Amino acid sequence: MAKAPQNAISPTRAEDYPEWYQQVIRAADMAENSPVRGCMVIKPWGYRLWENMQRALDDMFKATGHQNAYFPLLIPMSFLEKEAEHVEGFAKECAVVTHHRLEPDPNGGLRPAGKLDEPLIIRPTSETIIGATYAKWVQSYRDLPILINQWANVMRWELRTRMFLRTAEFLWQEGHTVHATEAEAIEETQRMIDVYADFAENWMAMPVTIGSKTPGERFPGAVDTMTIEAMMQDRKALQAGTSHFLGQNFSRAQEIVFQSESGDREYAWTTSWGVSTRLIGALIMTHADDDGLVLPPKLAPCHVIILPIYKDEQRAEVMEYIHSLRDELANQRFNDAPVRVEIDDRDLRGGEKKWHHVKRGVPIRLEIGPKDIEKRSAFMGRRDQPKSSPIGRDELVATIGTILGDIQNQLYNKAAQLRADHSVSIDNEADFRAFFATDDPESHEIHGGFAHCHFADEDSLQPLLKELKVTIRCIPREGNDEPGTCFATGKPAAKKAIFAKAY
Amino acid sequence: MAKAPQNAISPTRAEDYPEWYQQVIRAADMAENSPVRGCMVIKPWGYRLWENMQRALDDMFKATGHQNAYFPLLIPMSFLEKEAEHVEGFAKECAVVTHHRLEPDPNGGLRPAGKLDEPLIIRPTSETIIGATYAKWVQSYRDLPILINQWANVMRWELRTRMFLRTAEFLWQEGHTVHATEAEAIEETQRMIDVYADFAENWMAMPVTIGSKTPGERFPGAVDTMTIEAMMQDRKALQAGTSHFLGQNFSRAQEIVFQSESGDREYAWTTSWGVSTRLIGALIMTHADDDGLVLPPKLAPCHVIILPIYKDEQRAEVMEYIHSLRDELANQRFNDAPVRVEIDDRDLRGGEKKWHHVKRGVPIRLEIGPKDIEKRSAFMGRRDQPKSSPIGRDELVATIGTILGDIQNQLYNKAAQLRADHSVSIDNEADFRAFFATDDPESHEIHGGFAHCHFADEDSLQPLLKELKVTIRCIPREGNDEPGTCFATGKPAAKKAIFAKAY
Repeated sequence: MAKAPQNAISPTRAEDYPEWYQQVIRAADMAENSPVRGCMVIKPWGYRLWENMQRALDDMFKATGHQNAYFPLLIPMSFLEKEAEHVEGFAKECAVVTHHRLEPDPNGGLRPAGKLDEPLIIRPTSETIIGATYAKWVQSYRDLPILINQWANVMRWELRTRMFLRTAEFLWQEGHTVHATEAEAIEETQRMIDVYADFAENWMAMPVTIGSKTPGERFPGAVDTMTIEAMMQDRKALQAGTSHFLGQNFSRAQEIVFQSESGDREYAWTTSWGVSTRLIGALIMTHADDDGLVLPPKLAPCHVIILPIYKDEQRAEVMEYIHSLRDELANQRFNDAPVRVEIDDRDLRGGEKKWHHVKRGVPIRLEIGPKDIEKRSAFMGRRDQPKSSPIGRDELVATIGTILGDIQNQLYNKAAQLRADHSVSIDNEADFRAFFATDDPESHEIHGGFAHCHFADEDSLQPLLKELKVTIRCIPREGNDEPGTCFATGKPAAKKAIFAKAY
Repeated sequence: MAKAPQNAISPTRAEDYPEWYQQVIRAADMAENSPVRGCMVIKPWGYRLWENMQRALDDMFKATGHQNAYFPLLIPMSFLEKEAEHVEGFAKECAVVTHHRLEPDPNGGLRPAGKLDEPLIIRPTSETIIGATYAKWVQSYRDLPILINQWANVMRWELRTRMFLRTAEFLWQEGHTVHATEAEAIEETQRMIDVYADFAENWMAMPVTIGSKTPGERFPGAVDTMTIEAMMQDRKALQAGTSHFLGQNFSRAQEIVFQSESGDREYAWTTSWGVSTRLIGALIMTHADDDGLVLPPKLAPCHVIILPIYKDEQRAEVMEYIHSLRDELANQRFNDAPVRVEIDDRDLRGGEKKWHHVKRGVPIRLEIGPKDIEKRSAFMGRRDQPKSSPIGRDELVATIGTILGDIQNQLYNKAAQLRADHSVSIDNEADFRAFFATDDPESHEIHGGFAHCHFADEDSLQPLLKELKVTIRCIPREGNDEPGTCFATGKPAAKKAIFAKAY
């Protein structure tokens, strides 16, 4: 007889990390592949998580002076041609609309008809269409700054897709701002990467490093791309959000011109910044374990799931206790909002029901039967701890906010510890190779991490990086003032960068 | 010298209603046409209104047991072919994606490349793609009901567009549900049209009539289409929301089959229901006046705008008074939420500033200068009343919620009165013709309204309706049990319908 699996997710992280990721999504019922190539269906449990992310981010955007608006899905092809680097970056993978109706095909079925004079592309990002609109809005310095964000779907025709991490269509927000001065635009770029870092660390419980991309890794058309980089449990880096200082590149391409206080006509300074449903992938790979999803309480759609246990004749008594406990808990607060409590009274076996919520990552499970009621207690399982244990009802109600806060902190600390354990400073190529090389490239061995290395010149490193499948993630903004020598070439180098394998 | 205009909006409703509508949108800075044919840009003031609508509706959907999810933007062409009436209804006006990249054109610029094996269309509505997914999810009666809503953008290649009312791309929500029995699906259809009516009447302050569409006006593929119909100020009808009982039509086309409790394989029963940014157009045409937008307080992004009036040396005193008043007002509640108060301290002339907020429809304006402070009062203008008058500070703070509630009610009552004044029962063709005919078809004369008429047969009325540009809006659900005779043919008729010109 086969041995019962030790964990709810098979394979485990150690056995096959990429497949474990897919299985966590499936077990938590968050999303699935759709019949449309490269596009996914975000299922209710995944979407509730996204809604909570949206709400928190949206509040932060509004608190920093931004308003939401909505711009067209489709972009005329000619708009894309205006910024040379931008078209280079996005024309290779975009959905092109060429017709505006379908007609019966003489061979059966339908065929496209009504050819458009100019093809339209589905936005891969909206700098060009929003910039064209801003050019009309901006006349004088009095019209500035423009501080607008858009929640939208975008599309990039990726060849290799993976749910949440890289899909042809994805949901995101894109901020697009216009400023009268370079200094203001740079300040905005920094402000928004700080907002993203705040969200990642304090809501997602995911430690991130803030830094600038090297020229080769910048957003097409940007002068500077700021990024937040996180370490996943397989020690790969994931770019979780970016904020771009676009200089005057887009305003020149799109004629965003204003009359300054002194009466001169000047090109405006623009920024853009975005995060996407990719954050859900980042959250999974930061916290999930071999039993499935683990949700940081601040973003969990449900904080506490109550599981009644009874025989038929005990039902009334148990449900009464549970409903009153639910109400008491829901009157408590966590993170400036009511505690979110649900009861699962479906007719399922206890074990099946428990594992359902373990796999979905609910922070706290309460199993309650007649014996718990006798003792005025509950049997509590914390998703961040292996064992369940009883807790008195009064203590539970009094400390529920504290417990949720503690789970939030534990998740952050665990992720920070992983990053600390696998971050190294490297000053020579041999060590660099040893850090990133595997004995067997086909194995699922987890290795490497973040290598902090002084480097002089991005281009000369490319052969080495390509060989090792390593990329430069960012030049960290903080604690990076000591000059040194390039780990590979020995040339003098002003800054360190983080090198890592990456998503 | 030209006489100063009496109103902020030119032309007035009486002078040219369609142009007045466009000018209200422009004056309130809600939206504008985009460089993409038929698509609009929803500007921050318009989008804030949409956000408030979304929030209220979303809460109502969740309170009735629905969850949100997200399905792909693109639909394979073959999916559309499966339901015969559906393809007939939507194939004629849809954006078709045929290529997945752009390449340099030898003649300059770019051209589409990477032709797709199967064209994809941008969703005009998602029954087909969501149904294909549901077919996989539904196996047993235990999987039912499925109660899911999606907030999304959709696209219909309309020839004649008008901002908010009819645009190629628009934002909406679409609910898609699956049930084990016909009765449950019909109950859901009714429940959701009731939710829409509740939202229209209690949030938008817009009276609506609930009814069924006649067969000729149904959603393509539906068995029954329920609608809420509202009367605009030009007495035309506007369909503000629909809820469709789809019977087994889509489940047969898409093979949504389940095993019933008795073990039989049965086709499921489905519904769909939606409202869109069209509601913003409805709100404008219900409440706006010749001075611009008028917002019902429950949906207004800002309830109270405070306009400080001072000479430079009085600034500190005035702003201190205003900030403390703002805080006191914001601590009051209206509609179960804090009162939304903003201060406009821009350096503009007082009149210009006042009219800025009149045109945007802010429910309450408070002008406050040193003399008001002396009297511990504020000069209050209600958007629903022509004249401003002083009010004591304490009274204002104590009654702000009541005042906002009163404005909400007044707006509803005014709209209900308009509808009552222009709703008639008609039992013969001569009166019907007289009600809808104009002397001069080119004039902007406002005429007609809702004609409640018994009718026997939709088809036989078409020539008359076409001649008069009148449509059958709905067969009202309530108070429609008295049989009669058809107003045009004299045949026995079981029900009355509402006839009206319409958007």
